[in-house]
Amino acid sequence: MSDEQNIKRNEEIADQDDFSKWYTDVVLRAKLADYSPVRGSMVIRPYGYGLWENMQSHLDGRIKESGCENAYFPLFIPQSFLMKEAEHVEGFAPQVALVTQAGGEKLEEPLVVRPTSEAIICHMYAQWVQSWRDLPILINQWANVVRWEKVTRLFLRTSEFLWQEGHTCHATPQEAEERTIQMLKVYTDFAQDDLAIPVVPGRKSPSEKFPGAVNTYTIEAMMGDGKALQSGTSHDLGDHFARAFDIQFLNKQNEREYAYSTSWGLSTRMLGGLIMVHGDDNGLRLPPKVAPIQVIIIPIWKNEAEMDSTMAAADSVAASLKAAGVRARVDRDTEHRSGWKYSEYELKGVPLRMEIGPRDVASGNVVLVRRDTRAKQIVAAGEVAVTVKGLLDDIQQAMYQAAQEKLAAGTRTVSDFAQFSEVIANQRGFIDCWWDGTAETEEAIKTATKATIRCIPLKYLDHPAAEQAGGEAGEPQPDIYSGQPGKYRVIYARSY
Amino acid sequence: MSDEQNIKRNEEIADQDDFSKWYTDVVLRAKLADYSPVRGSMVIRPYGYGLWENMQSHLDGRIKESGCENAYFPLFIPQSFLMKEAEHVEGFAPQVALVTQAGGEKLEEPLVVRPTSEAIICHMYAQWVQSWRDLPILINQWANVVRWEKVTRLFLRTSEFLWQEGHTCHATPQEAEERTIQMLKVYTDFAQDDLAIPVVPGRKSPSEKFPGAVNTYTIEAMMGDGKALQSGTSHDLGDHFARAFDIQFLNKQNEREYAYSTSWGLSTRMLGGLIMVHGDDNGLRLPPKVAPIQVIIIPIWKNEAEMDSTMAAADSVAASLKAAGVRARVDRDTEHRSGWKYSEYELKGVPLRMEIGPRDVASGNVVLVRRDTRAKQIVAAGEVAVTVKGLLDDIQQAMYQAAQEKLAAGTRTVSDFAQFSEVIANQRGFIDCWWDGTAETEEAIKTATKATIRCIPLKYLDHPAAEQAGGEAGEPQPDIYSGQPGKYRVIYARSY
Repeated sequence: MSDEQNIKRNEEIADQDDFSKWYTDVVLRAKLADYSPVRGSMVIRPYGYGLWENMQSHLDGRIKESGCENAYFPLFIPQSFLMKEAEHVEGFAPQVALVTQAGGEKLEEPLVVRPTSEAIICHMYAQWVQSWRDLPILINQWANVVRWEKVTRLFLRTSEFLWQEGHTCHATPQEAEERTIQMLKVYTDFAQDDLAIPVVPGRKSPSEKFPGAVNTYTIEAMMGDGKALQSGTSHDLGDHFARAFDIQFLNKQNEREYAYSTSWGLSTRMLGGLIMVHGDDNGLRLPPKVAPIQVIIIPIWKNEAEMDSTMAAADSVAASLKAAGVRARVDRDTEHRSGWKYSEYELKGVPLRMEIGPRDVASGNVVLVRRDTRAKQIVAAGEVAVTVKGLLDDIQQAMYQAAQEKLAAGTRTVSDFAQFSEVIANQRGFIDCWWDGTAETEEAIKTATKATIRCIPLKYLDHPAAEQAGGEAGEPQPDIYSGQPGKYRVIYARSY
Repeated sequence: MSDEQNIKRNEEIADQDDFSKWYTDVVLRAKLADYSPVRGSMVIRPYGYGLWENMQSHLDGRIKESGCENAYFPLFIPQSFLMKEAEHVEGFAPQVALVTQAGGEKLEEPLVVRPTSEAIICHMYAQWVQSWRDLPILINQWANVVRWEKVTRLFLRTSEFLWQEGHTCHATPQEAEERTIQMLKVYTDFAQDDLAIPVVPGRKSPSEKFPGAVNTYTIEAMMGDGKALQSGTSHDLGDHFARAFDIQFLNKQNEREYAYSTSWGLSTRMLGGLIMVHGDDNGLRLPPKVAPIQVIIIPIWKNEAEMDSTMAAADSVAASLKAAGVRARVDRDTEHRSGWKYSEYELKGVPLRMEIGPRDVASGNVVLVRRDTRAKQIVAAGEVAVTVKGLLDDIQQAMYQAAQEKLAAGTRTVSDFAQFSEVIANQRGFIDCWWDGTAETEEAIKTATKATIRCIPLKYLDHPAAEQAGGEAGEPQPDIYSGQPGKYRVIYARSY
């Protein structure tokens, strides 16, 4: 990274607004993560990791359902491998960490700590692929990767992060493009149905695509401050990597041909997105599907006899909830007052709080309080499991609905650059407008407003790989900056 | 590692016997793993990784049930951290991989790629622990680690491997010792109940303990060739790391005190053990609980009409098995003959094979063949789910039983060194005998026979931390080598 870029980044950090401070504060106070003594690396604490495990479990299920299997490839990549694909090395070389010594000796060739695994995986595919019968290869990997960063932010930008990276290999370019879009759809469904985060799926402009890709697709989510977060990307690599790593196969006509590959990744960054989409002044709000604790049960008492009876009632309700597949936990803390506990679990974003006091035990009821709306209701203990399951579904839906409304309200269609600049300066959010398709316009707008093209929404294309606008884009309008004929209808925003 | 050790290791490899060749051959042919272009690192292929995922899932459940939560700590550790605990650095320094450059610059302090994470985790615990209220900390991590190896073998010894490492922190030494033993019990149950591998849980001799530990406990399994595999270890670290990393807490008397810690790990090495305990001349034999495919369904046909009907029957049975929670797969390959497929799935160790031919479709039956005993039976299609579940349980039990009998038959009680030498030279296996407790004797036996003390079995100690023999050890006998009074009854064996 150049010194100039470096200074820019640092300025951005100095310019941290309330939202950024709120974010860091919530991450630390809810014990999702902590700073580590290794510059740029974070510690994911049990509560944050529990959330990540639930996210992983949902996404992993979806990836497997799409026909992929998991595998594991080496952490270290010979430096020469990274250099085989010209754009790829240019994109990643400045960010790599290098192992130069091992076992007490200097290595003949330094090893790169993987920033992404195309280079090592394509090398292996070249050994495994002989004929069309060996295709497709559909493999995913859950792994840690390292991209050295100058300025970092918990979850959003760290030198080491956790992710899944899928790598597939196909006999035809059509099949590769289809798989690229299929996995974008998997990410879209995961974001929307599991994380309650509405996203805009679309294609990246050429300047923003993955180093070495033919086409990069992305899902873009709107954060609480109106900025965009690139939340998952899916790359059609064409035959670029197959040529660089010599993945050839005998086709049905017995001719040697290069294969076509894809890669797609989603990382712990998405966890940062989850916080920034749903959080509020009281802290996290976690969607029930991925919340480590779905229901926190808090017994309330004034003396030991009351403690015994409310704790027993809490344990009994917890058992029935667990039997119904609900992640319920009883708070056994005797050090803090109930009010303190309510705030603590609101901070932690637990979707439902259940209060059980001596009067509730006597009447055979419990009190349920929703984290999202703070609505309170009294439920008979015998109906708790059914009611809780219904409420968790409601909360999941309501959170998606609320986020969807924010996204709609925060997306503005503009037709000239004055409007554009005003929106960026005052309200932020997404801007929906026409682009002439040139890198010059893109760059000029970025310099003037810090806003970039987040994507060409899929809905504005006839088909994903389309060379021009289509779908719901409507009649082309002039580019809002250059006034030249518009080529694509796109989404601009400032971004993380 | 010294040159001398190096040469020794290489000799051992040159001395590969049939069993070693069989092992490597099975790993490669069953596509569990492959060599990688990075010296010492392996690629875990989907079938091997599917097996590891099932192992993880069982072990992770057991670890969580014991009260631990998962978290994630940085891959890189500042070199100075590793040096804080004297024995620890001595043990690991020769094996570390060092990152010396990152982001295009030389680092001021090299970063160690974690060989194990005590140093970084204890540093974080020191920040998190203030008072007795913060204890215990019960955290586990699933991660990759790197220990540079000169000579490697797939799964058994690789420079990078996958594992879980648990790290707990306690207020008293008793509690730390109890947790150490509790986790050894978790490993024992996992090995025996999930992997069908009988193990000898015990304490390591001082020369074999973890660098920095007070006591190291181990589970030792006997491989098909009679050699031992150290399959999981649990360390009582006393206050050694708390002192090195300054983990102090205010106790209930408001006095500052050092905490007590433990660590325990089990790795992909165990997957190598699984292969070597259960495999036979036809390849793998996988215990049903962790087999990626529990039932392979093979439709048998001669023409297209038969293919349609047998495939339909196979799909219908597969659906009912999946609904019953069985991991069933239909073989859709049209390239190979049935005989080839039978061998292939035997090689892959699939516990049950189901054959469905046209006559079976007509009679409404299926044929089931067990991998472990090759016993065949005909079952009515309507009863398949119940029968299969029963058979899978039987196979799991029978595999454990068979391995248990081998372990018993392969463990010999000897009372003099002539017997000892003869067993090691001719039959291998475990040797049960008395040891005078000195490092000199241990070393002399190792030099003479390559056999080492695998452990002092827990059953031969009054309690785990005992300073002398007890339990079922019986009356002490003289050391079989020195003739001095025996202090512990131990297990010797050659090992991987």
